Amino acid sequence: MITSIKRILIGRPLKSTELGEQKLNKTKALAILSSDALSSVAYGPEQVLIVLLTVGAAAFWYSIPIAVGVLALLTALIFSYRQIIFAYPHGGGAYVVSKENLGKHAGLVAGASLLVDYILTVAVSVSAGTDAITSAFPSLHPYNVPIAVVFVLFITTLNLRGVTESASILAYPVYLFVLAILALIATGVYKVATGQVSPDLHASIGTPVAGIGLFLLLKAFASGSSALTGVEAISNAIPNFKSPAPNNASKTLLAMGALLAILFSGIVFLAYYYGISPRPEVTVVSDIAEDVFGRNGVYYFIQGTTALILILAANTGYSAFPLLAVNLAKDKYIPRMFTVRGDRLGYSNGILMLGLLSIVLIVGFGGKTEHLIPLYAVGVFIPFTLSQTGMMVKWFREKPKGWKSKFIINTIGACISFIVCIVFFLTKFGQVWPVLIFLPVIIWLFVRIHAHYEAVADQLRTTTCEPSMPIEGNVIIVPVAGITHVVENSLNYAKSLHADQIIAVHIPFERDEEAAFEQKWQKWQPDIRLVTLHSPYRSLVYPLTKFIDTVQRKASESHYQVTVVIPQFIPKKAWHHILHNQSSLLLRAHLLYRRDVIITTVPYHLKK
Amino acid sequence: MITSIKRILIGRPLKSTELGEQKLNKTKALAILSSDALSSVAYGPEQVLIVLLTVGAAAFWYSIPIAVGVLALLTALIFSYRQIIFAYPHGGGAYVVSKENLGKHAGLVAGASLLVDYILTVAVSVSAGTDAITSAFPSLHPYNVPIAVVFVLFITTLNLRGVTESASILAYPVYLFVLAILALIATGVYKVATGQVSPDLHASIGTPVAGIGLFLLLKAFASGSSALTGVEAISNAIPNFKSPAPNNASKTLLAMGALLAILFSGIVFLAYYYGISPRPEVTVVSDIAEDVFGRNGVYYFIQGTTALILILAANTGYSAFPLLAVNLAKDKYIPRMFTVRGDRLGYSNGILMLGLLSIVLIVGFGGKTEHLIPLYAVGVFIPFTLSQTGMMVKWFREKPKGWKSKFIINTIGACISFIVCIVFFLTKFGQVWPVLIFLPVIIWLFVRIHAHYEAVADQLRTTTCEPSMPIEGNVIIVPVAGITHVVENSLNYAKSLHADQIIAVHIPFERDEEAAFEQKWQKWQPDIRLVTLHSPYRSLVYPLTKFIDTVQRKASESHYQVTVVIPQFIPKKAWHHILHNQSSLLLRAHLLYRRDVIITTVPYHLKK
Repeated sequence: MITSIKRILIGRPLKSTELGEQKLNKTKALAILSSDALSSVAYGPEQVLIVLLTVGAAAFWYSIPIAVGVLALLTALIFSYRQIIFAYPHGGGAYVVSKENLGKHAGLVAGASLLVDYILTVAVSVSAGTDAITSAFPSLHPYNVPIAVVFVLFITTLNLRGVTESASILAYPVYLFVLAILALIATGVYKVATGQVSPDLHASIGTPVAGIGLFLLLKAFASGSSALTGVEAISNAIPNFKSPAPNNASKTLLAMGALLAILFSGIVFLAYYYGISPRPEVTVVSDIAEDVFGRNGVYYFIQGTTALILILAANTGYSAFPLLAVNLAKDKYIPRMFTVRGDRLGYSNGILMLGLLSIVLIVGFGGKTEHLIPLYAVGVFIPFTLSQTGMMVKWFREKPKGWKSKFIINTIGACISFIVCIVFFLTKFGQVWPVLIFLPVIIWLFVRIHAHYEAVADQLRTTTCEPSMPIEGNVIIVPVAGITHVVENSLNYAKSLHADQIIAVHIPFERDEEAAFEQKWQKWQPDIRLVTLHSPYRSLVYPLTKFIDTVQRKASESHYQVTVVIPQFIPKKAWHHILHNQSSLLLRAHLLYRRDVIITTVPYHLKK
Repeated sequence: MITSIKRILIGRPLKSTELGEQKLNKTKALAILSSDALSSVAYGPEQVLIVLLTVGAAAFWYSIPIAVGVLALLTALIFSYRQIIFAYPHGGGAYVVSKENLGKHAGLVAGASLLVDYILTVAVSVSAGTDAITSAFPSLHPYNVPIAVVFVLFITTLNLRGVTESASILAYPVYLFVLAILALIATGVYKVATGQVSPDLHASIGTPVAGIGLFLLLKAFASGSSALTGVEAISNAIPNFKSPAPNNASKTLLAMGALLAILFSGIVFLAYYYGISPRPEVTVVSDIAEDVFGRNGVYYFIQGTTALILILAANTGYSAFPLLAVNLAKDKYIPRMFTVRGDRLGYSNGILMLGLLSIVLIVGFGGKTEHLIPLYAVGVFIPFTLSQTGMMVKWFREKPKGWKSKFIINTIGACISFIVCIVFFLTKFGQVWPVLIFLPVIIWLFVRIHAHYEAVADQLRTTTCEPSMPIEGNVIIVPVAGITHVVENSLNYAKSLHADQIIAVHIPFERDEEAAFEQKWQKWQPDIRLVTLHSPYRSLVYPLTKFIDTVQRKASESHYQVTVVIPQFIPKKAWHHILHNQSSLLLRAHLLYRRDVIITTVPYHLKK
């Protein structure tokens, strides 16, 4: 039954050879990998204005130079990441670049930041989208958390079905959003150009403003830069592209950069020209749309697609997280299970883990994840800085043809990213400090896990460890609860193994049972030696373990192997299990983990 | 670590032979087995007055004849149960009496009612006691549920420590409560006798009241009878008494009956004479205490001991439930685990289950368990009726010397109990109907469980089932994941068993791994046949199961037994488990439950 539910939810399993059909073309890739970056247009410009408003509406003109700065950073990042794509065509992005050029620890910092970041992406964007929807239907507001969880489950399931299927479904809302914002910008700019908008709505550029300072401007710039989270996703997800993957990924990256630049600068310009002031209950995009179109169908279309893109921004995390996890798992820093492909060839453990952890975040914060945004932005700019620095080192070391211009591009990217990082720490330390705790903790875990895998590999390798002792003979111990058919089966099996000795062990709780059982045994199995161990404290495990220890001590002298043969009857239905003392399971678990004996289970399948 | 926490909570384990020291003397037994019955004095009289109040305060004088009726019923029940104690000295009470004299199904009805009833006792009395405490300290009111849960955990732990230890601790508050109420009654009656109380406070007995009818009086009588819940507990718990158990139990029962009669009639009389009218926020006992003593230390002492006795009433459930469960489990109607004595010789599974289920009830009803009281009362009067009827049948069948007077006592008991039952159904059907659903469901479960145990016994008995097939030879299958030390160990073991055939099975997910592995194998283990099963869907279980099926089909023709030897490495620390794909466990579980093969696990304990 579980299997058929699984089939309905995620579809039939795919053969490993069908992997090629699971690759994305540029149109679909652009949709699912840029949704995170593009969705930031819905809140990025607003963040800038909110910071400027602390001085006064007259300072709004500063949003224009700040936007120019953000665009410069965007350009630097896009070209830097384009270079990363070609230099590391197998994906891995910041983690791989940092590891290979700056060393293991820089790689782990980048990897840990990004892993956490994608979880935050999912939690923050789904919460924000849910908020947008419940704002439109206030009666749904008390159900924010369950609605957000359902969205996460939906996106998780979609991704478990495979990357192409989710891309086919999710591409529409992304392009509709782009279309809606482009239409908004075009109409808005047309109205400005044709003089339909009063130029008195805004202070002209260059108006002096009292109280403005470098710190405030940097803070506004850092807030605006949060619109750039997500531009690294494509570099992590190169393996998902149709071949030639690096070329396709690079073109997709450029397209995303261009779109993001147009949408971001368009919204900033319109907000400035229409003199929009951020208000708590209405978004800036909503204000612009109302000014440009009035409250008609187009307005609601823009609002609807904006809510959708916020939720779908989560999908970028689903594309990038599992692939980053594969890279970390291959290097043995996180559990190996993240390298296993699921039925639909996606890395399903990564997808499930991402869904699970973001649900934990959403539920834990009661759906109020807004104050995680700075955490999430700084978590992106750390790997940005590291990967650009890594590329600088790479060019400087390898000095390929034309390396100087490449070096300059990455240097600019590294410097601006680093400044943004520092600004985040300086201006929003109150929200950003947890990074300083969880990054070291996660990296410590990575290192512990790595050490464990190395130790295991060392112990399993046939060449490095001492050769196994030869087994000269076998001693078999059979715990017997009574004179039953199950026990008979086990004894028959033990006899068939030509062991050197078979010992049946009976553990009565009452003294008076002892003699009676020994008599019955003599009649039933006279050939097999019976040992009775009275257990005054009614424990099975303790006397048996002690007995096994004694036998093992003797056996190991002559290189004999001790095997415990456990008779176990298997009830026909699952609910029957609670009707039976699970002594066999308990015994097996205890012996397997605590003692060095071989455990054989002889099942007896009940038919009724 | 878990073991040492357990030791601190419940103490060192006891030997089976120390059972004798775990028996109760009469003083302690009276305390823990009568707390339920005695605690009803705190609310029983009030219930009568609440019903009478619906006609008017003038009807309060009817509480006197109703109390006489309740006392008559109490007398009949005490003498009936006294006869049951001597007739069935091994305990079991209503369940055993009904089963032996009225047949299996009557026994199951009585047993099911009582089991549910003890759970309700615990939930209702702990909730009521918690309410009494939080009424005194209103700031604690929001924490009603957690406080109640802590009380249940406390009483559960105390009972896990053993019946004598819990009795030693719990006897004090019970006797203090008895003392407090006796002092109240004595002082109150003294004041009445010395004329310090105005006789105008109450309508005199016989005053005609408009609107009073038989139905209302019956309802008041039934409500008053809820004070009798718990009188059956002693008959269930005879095995807990010091020998001669039946004599001691009978004397304890008489003492309890006498105490209950005095306390109940005293409170009813004082409430009538002082003209107390039940009010929602103050209990009748509290009103009487205030009238008699004023609000001084004695008043608070009475209030405090009343709150305590309500909570300790739960302990009666803990004494009776596990012993009833043992009887049902011995007859194979509930899981066998209820017959197992824990470290402290109590039936710990019964104690834990009772604690767990009452916590579920308390949490499920948010601590508001008052409307479970009628359910709980009717759940007691069903087994009362059945056990008295059973005794009637017994005397009539066996006709021992002097049987007629015994027959009459039980007949009176049976008739009154039956009437109370009917009255409950007629007057409180809205609260009592769930009994009609859950009793049949529980009995159906009992019957299903019984059928399963019978079927299992039948299949395990060596005499009734077909003899085991002889094993003519062995085929061993070893799934191998790679060329490692763990696999080497498993192969060495397989070789030592002198099997007729050993087959190593490798399951690659990629075609190109296949040839390489086969080559390496040829060099490493040329003597052992390797079968490679390519798994295009990346499943281990499916191809292996199919292969085993093929081998098994061939093997069974010549009576060969198939054994799957699974190499498994055991990590040193528990957290390491999540770092490894649990393929061995998965494989084992699947094969053990789905296929008829023997599973051998060869552990390899990692040292780092």
